[in-house]
Amino acid sequence: MDKVNLAAALAAVTEPWRPKVVGAVNGQEVKLARFRGEFVWHRHAEGDELFLGVEGTFRVEFRDRVVTLGPGEFVVVPRGVEHRTVADREAAALLVEPAGLRNTGDVVHPRLTAP
Amino acid sequence: MDKVNLAAALAAVTEPWRPKVVGAVNGQEVKLARFRGEFVWHRHAEGDELFLGVEGTFRVEFRDRVVTLGPGEFVVVPRGVEHRTVADREAAALLVEPAGLRNTGDVVHPRLTAP
Repeated sequence: MDKVNLAAALAAVTEPWRPKVVGAVNGQEVKLARFRGEFVWHRHAEGDELFLGVEGTFRVEFRDRVVTLGPGEFVVVPRGVEHRTVADREAAALLVEPAGLRNTGDVVHPRLTAP
Repeated sequence: MDKVNLAAALAAVTEPWRPKVVGAVNGQEVKLARFRGEFVWHRHAEGDELFLGVEGTFRVEFRDRVVTLGPGEFVVVPRGVEHRTVADREAAALLVEPAGLRNTGDVVHPRLTAP
């Protein structure tokens, strides 16, 4: 029941595309992640994924539309929907998703899939 | 898959202690709420409750400690743990909690329990 300060916790997230778990609520994990460049297209069959902008601006791209998020803006990617995140300049986000979800979903990527 | 801007969505939340659902992720509801004054002590047997500060400063009080939250700070109240929120000046928060959770938990309060 200790509080988490997002800016302070982000200081410990140094690599892009390596989300760090900072909390848990009802089987969901709360993560902080940095984005830089283009992620790989993927989908999560197991659950929805919420992205809340924390620093900078990034895009959540779907095959048929793009959502641009800044600090204080969020979108929920429904389970099974293909998407990728893209940040022209480094950005950071808070994620809410099922515990244990693989960051690259149905894809295993040699560089981007988190260990 | 539309984005939600927290500041814009908060403009539609006019009454304190009347959370408004602004999103859903894996059976959890994302809500925005305004706090003003003291809420009633209560607990939720059904699930954990995450509070993320959005505007102003407020306290999440437990029987044995107090957590003060400002914008960009969150705490998770575990299920079953008695708590109340207190805001000396009006504040606003984002909540993540199981869909359908009663705001006053195990308590029915004539003024504070949401309809």
